[in-house]
Amino acid sequence: MEIIKIIEQKINNKTKPIGALGLLETIALQVALIQNTDTPALNNPNIIVFAADHGIAADGLVNPYPQAVTAQMVLNFVQGGAAINVFCKQNNIALSIVDAGVNIDFDVTLPIYHEKIAKGTKNYLLQDAMTEQQCNEAIAKGSILVDEMANNGCNFIGFGEMGISNTSSAALIMSAILQIPIDDCIGRGTGTNDEQLQTKKEILQIVFEKHQLQKLNNNPIQLLCKIGGFEIAMMVGAYLKAAALNITIVVDGFIATAALLIANKINNTVINHCIFAHTSGEQGHQKMLQHLQVQPLLQLGMRLGEGTGAALAMPLIQSAILFLNEMASFESAGVSNQ
Amino acid sequence: MEIIKIIEQKINNKTKPIGALGLLETIALQVALIQNTDTPALNNPNIIVFAADHGIAADGLVNPYPQAVTAQMVLNFVQGGAAINVFCKQNNIALSIVDAGVNIDFDVTLPIYHEKIAKGTKNYLLQDAMTEQQCNEAIAKGSILVDEMANNGCNFIGFGEMGISNTSSAALIMSAILQIPIDDCIGRGTGTNDEQLQTKKEILQIVFEKHQLQKLNNNPIQLLCKIGGFEIAMMVGAYLKAAALNITIVVDGFIATAALLIANKINNTVINHCIFAHTSGEQGHQKMLQHLQVQPLLQLGMRLGEGTGAALAMPLIQSAILFLNEMASFESAGVSNQ
Repeated sequence: MEIIKIIEQKINNKTKPIGALGLLETIALQVALIQNTDTPALNNPNIIVFAADHGIAADGLVNPYPQAVTAQMVLNFVQGGAAINVFCKQNNIALSIVDAGVNIDFDVTLPIYHEKIAKGTKNYLLQDAMTEQQCNEAIAKGSILVDEMANNGCNFIGFGEMGISNTSSAALIMSAILQIPIDDCIGRGTGTNDEQLQTKKEILQIVFEKHQLQKLNNNPIQLLCKIGGFEIAMMVGAYLKAAALNITIVVDGFIATAALLIANKINNTVINHCIFAHTSGEQGHQKMLQHLQVQPLLQLGMRLGEGTGAALAMPLIQSAILFLNEMASFESAGVSNQ
Repeated sequence: MEIIKIIEQKINNKTKPIGALGLLETIALQVALIQNTDTPALNNPNIIVFAADHGIAADGLVNPYPQAVTAQMVLNFVQGGAAINVFCKQNNIALSIVDAGVNIDFDVTLPIYHEKIAKGTKNYLLQDAMTEQQCNEAIAKGSILVDEMANNGCNFIGFGEMGISNTSSAALIMSAILQIPIDDCIGRGTGTNDEQLQTKKEILQIVFEKHQLQKLNNNPIQLLCKIGGFEIAMMVGAYLKAAALNITIVVDGFIATAALLIANKINNTVINHCIFAHTSGEQGHQKMLQHLQVQPLLQLGMRLGEGTGAALAMPLIQSAILFLNEMASFESAGVSNQ
């Protein structure tokens, strides 16, 4: 019998009406197929937070928080004070922080992955954000990091990010790849007010036209070079490697999904390895998810990034795996089926 | 300063944009207010599953599963094989099973609460489901059970149920209390097909008219006597006591929310103690939630009962409590605020 039939039969023979566990049944089937077994497991889950700065942030045109917050938040992660720390600790998820390109010289003894490509991207209002060499270096580093996690027995991974202004990069990527007008892709990010939002829209419209991004919907590397971020490029490499290693990927919010759009352009099987954690409160994310025709686990109106949605979804994914492994069948429990 | 201001200020000073944790912020505030402290805690959570049979189930007109499944599932709970067992074990929730009125003589040594009112209700197609004395006895027993949990240090409680046909009781309660036509309150329950659904609607229309339920929207005890279930009546008592003791109640699905409609008619402050775990896949539940103007934590398309939604929501509630207690503030972390 085909493995998919074996898994479906196992799910349907559990002591519950068929389909009564809803989306958890879909997740159980997906994870079992990724792991090619009817007894899947969630081992050593890890969330990698990629942090980097964006040249566009320096002038404050698209973001209300100062650029320095990226570095400050990395230190907050190290000290255990951020939301992602709290949720990872609660749910027994290892947390790995990566300096992909923060605009500061961190102390080399800081317990993070020191993978800085440069001290932030260039300002894409004026020039390309990064060179192709930098882009490829970031992708390679993301790939190596995931390889290391896999060697430590991790088979579930979530990607988070920290980078002041990175909702702007994500909106530009979304607009270019999904061919949706840039205005419809832009949201408030972290606390933009009405006036700032209008400015953000005007600036990104200029950026979109300057780089002729509508021509790059099938050229994901060039797109990253023009308007990407180092944390996004590194995440792309991480997606590609995780999928290649049959790791189940827990996709976080707006920026993480934008990185997935890029990764899936490079290899369109990546999405099969993805569980979507939540619908972000950031306008645009819902449209991304609709385009991908996927249904996320949570709708909590969150818009924080850092991988927080992925961390919160992990217990539900564990629930899906556990019901498949531990629930009794109608036969074993002596319960009458319909 | 008022306690609500203290809590709101604490939430807003965490290292995240204001509102960025979405519904978790609402939950944190609610729990803190229930416990009257800015350092709330989730202690010894418990899920009580009330099981009972319904006279209407005997003829199979409103339910595809045989009535015997109620007792079989109680044994499955005891053996640890049901979905609620798996999710409670995963999330460190104590699970209490109550025989509120199952149509079988359980072995007295079975590790459940033996609180049987009678071996199932009477068939409300023919007569009242229970006497007022039975109804009051059930409510009192539910109250005593919650008192016992509270004495054991439990401050979070979820209510589940098991009772073949109990979506019919719940639909009748919903129709009577919310004054919504009975047809719009009826769903498929556990696996009813199109033809069975039509029969269920016809039967419940007859029941509604026979007992003149539209007149009982302000008489919750009479409503329970006419068409209730012992598990529902006992749950009503449990709701009332939990609210009185300032326990936070995690509301499960369609039947648990129907019981809340009754409890809240008796004391309209009960709902302030309620967190809504999920929107059930059972048609009608969403309308109940809209009527109550509440936003549940999960939308997983589940329709299993047993308290499974409440069990799955518990880690998210814990996340809300933990971010409030453990996250750094802008000041303590040295992160620039806007």
